[in-house]
Amino acid sequence: MSGYSTAELDGLRDFYRTSLLDDTLPFWLPDSVDREYGGYLLMRDRDGTLLDDDKSVWFQGRFAWMLATLYNTTEPRAEWLEAAKSGVEFLKKHCFDDDGRMFFLVNRQGEPLRKRRYFFSEAFAILAFAATAKATGDEALAQDARDLFRRCMEYVDGERPLEPKFTDTRPTIGIGVPMIFLNVAQQLCDTVGDDHAASRIDGFVGQIRGFVKDDLRCVFEQLSPDGGVVDHFSERTLNPGHAIEGAWFILHEAKRRGGDADLEDLGCRMLDYMWERGWDQEHGGILYFRDPDDKPVMEYWQDMKFWWPQCEAIIATLLAYRMTGREKYAEWHRMIHDYAERTFHDAEHGEWFGYLHRDGRISTAMKGNHYKGPFHLPRMQWYCWQLLEE
Amino acid sequence: MSGYSTAELDGLRDFYRTSLLDDTLPFWLPDSVDREYGGYLLMRDRDGTLLDDDKSVWFQGRFAWMLATLYNTTEPRAEWLEAAKSGVEFLKKHCFDDDGRMFFLVNRQGEPLRKRRYFFSEAFAILAFAATAKATGDEALAQDARDLFRRCMEYVDGERPLEPKFTDTRPTIGIGVPMIFLNVAQQLCDTVGDDHAASRIDGFVGQIRGFVKDDLRCVFEQLSPDGGVVDHFSERTLNPGHAIEGAWFILHEAKRRGGDADLEDLGCRMLDYMWERGWDQEHGGILYFRDPDDKPVMEYWQDMKFWWPQCEAIIATLLAYRMTGREKYAEWHRMIHDYAERTFHDAEHGEWFGYLHRDGRISTAMKGNHYKGPFHLPRMQWYCWQLLEE
Repeated sequence: MSGYSTAELDGLRDFYRTSLLDDTLPFWLPDSVDREYGGYLLMRDRDGTLLDDDKSVWFQGRFAWMLATLYNTTEPRAEWLEAAKSGVEFLKKHCFDDDGRMFFLVNRQGEPLRKRRYFFSEAFAILAFAATAKATGDEALAQDARDLFRRCMEYVDGERPLEPKFTDTRPTIGIGVPMIFLNVAQQLCDTVGDDHAASRIDGFVGQIRGFVKDDLRCVFEQLSPDGGVVDHFSERTLNPGHAIEGAWFILHEAKRRGGDADLEDLGCRMLDYMWERGWDQEHGGILYFRDPDDKPVMEYWQDMKFWWPQCEAIIATLLAYRMTGREKYAEWHRMIHDYAERTFHDAEHGEWFGYLHRDGRISTAMKGNHYKGPFHLPRMQWYCWQLLEE
Repeated sequence: MSGYSTAELDGLRDFYRTSLLDDTLPFWLPDSVDREYGGYLLMRDRDGTLLDDDKSVWFQGRFAWMLATLYNTTEPRAEWLEAAKSGVEFLKKHCFDDDGRMFFLVNRQGEPLRKRRYFFSEAFAILAFAATAKATGDEALAQDARDLFRRCMEYVDGERPLEPKFTDTRPTIGIGVPMIFLNVAQQLCDTVGDDHAASRIDGFVGQIRGFVKDDLRCVFEQLSPDGGVVDHFSERTLNPGHAIEGAWFILHEAKRRGGDADLEDLGCRMLDYMWERGWDQEHGGILYFRDPDDKPVMEYWQDMKFWWPQCEAIIATLLAYRMTGREKYAEWHRMIHDYAERTFHDAEHGEWFGYLHRDGRISTAMKGNHYKGPFHLPRMQWYCWQLLEE
């Protein structure tokens, strides 16, 4: 086991930059911007052929955020800003229902197809509005981002009702909401500024901390409201890639504060525990779901390899290495980086495959659908590139 | 290619009977009947260990139906009737919400955990009520079955509103409701009798017929209300095992009528088309999802092998062979029967595995969860046994 040399880190920096700019983004741009109706057409086959012209509201926000963020943090390319604005306009014009909540899926023209019970479309719209407002200086759009964050906090705080998926018989709390809104609050503060978002960050960190069980070396996705383990299929199910994403959100918060030993330790423990549980010793890569006692998991794709847990683990291991200098994180980063590049990257058509079987065989070669699009992969390439520029 | 000899058919009859009575049922009975709270505890690991004590409402109805049906059609074992009554009592006592709709998941004590937007819990409860009423002669329970069927028809006819999952932007119709309620109506008529259910059968058959596209050699799961193909991910997705289940529901209707050349032809075409699309030429078995033009399918488990499509194909091929005498159906039956027995049957602990990878490797070895329990496998063994007794 050994750390990275400066030359190796420079090589990685160049690799992430060129992969992003010359391989990932050209798969999506310029063709995915819908010149007729605005927004993005992202549901694409391996070679970029459009498979379905519906529009995922998550991805309208996610891609707009990514493009505006590249504009803000790397270089001010007009193509990126123009495309980001197209997504933001589409979101504002078509993706809000009369009750203020956002849709989940709309058709090419922006007519609503499906609305879900949770408010993750909103989270990605806030990211898109804030990053684009920073790029353009549009204060009204910045305020839209802050207002939408405030509305989401009303859902979080129970001040604005949401239709529940489950009854009150056996209530649970989830790590998903504090995780995603920690990231949203960080971005909101760091682009257009928001005192309210800033005031919520400690609370989200505290909630995430509750899901980290040191005695079990485990980060749970769901717990009972008093923090206990709920011994049923869905509630037991661990999601290593998701928890590792949470780990780097915590490490990033420590970094935002110019160093915070307690948060650094928390993030590293989350990464350590879930790397142990998620890394596939036989074939490499991060498995999708695990059970805390290795019991059977109900979700059918539990032993598949999806692209996004690999992306999150690449960020988390590199960030942990940069912050702590511990050689094991460099070693883990090498393992996941090499595995992902070897199995997920499509050298022929660019971008990554999304869905592999456990042993690395491709299950389906398409590049975009309701759940995959230009977010986790370009975010990883951008974050690692920027981290290694510092 | 050759048909089955009488001796081979007798051997198959004995095989299905002994597999059901000596292998499948002993996995579940007597331990799965909850002596404390009633109903069934069915979420079990490979060796029968209980993994989760929640109760799927679908499976409370499905197992009660299976047990009462065995009592009615094979031999009147007191153990089966007692267990069926336990399920029916649990359903009546715990599984209906105040609005008359049924829950989807309850805890061991019967307290509601989750309710879904559709009414399939109701379909299986009708089956359970009707079969148990026939076994006991309980006319009030028979009327409960008829009343619940009538209520479901009010949902079907739009007289009683259900919360929609999708907006009205791009309406679709599905094969699922006419398929399941064709089966429910058949069972209701053939156990306790119901003039209203009898009057609906032609309508369901006509609706199913609309999903069979001879020009494309395809049975769709969803279409536009005017019968057109909807060119989007979810609506394109074919489910060969489900369509093959529909094929034998149609063939069974032809058989109930003492022969009906038109329905026999319809059922055989459904089987032919979806066998062509579902049978895995490389590894054997029926694949889970396919696209009509072999484009990528979005559902992650599209190329896995689940137990239930194999069960449905075993019934459909054997029934088609018995009704038509065509050698190809005997050949297909041999292929799917041998494949399923070789890959799905758990010779060590009994019952079948539920979830295999495309190449037959086990993905997870558990025997019961929210979606798998004693229904498709024992129903197949019972139906084939009874068919070969005739």
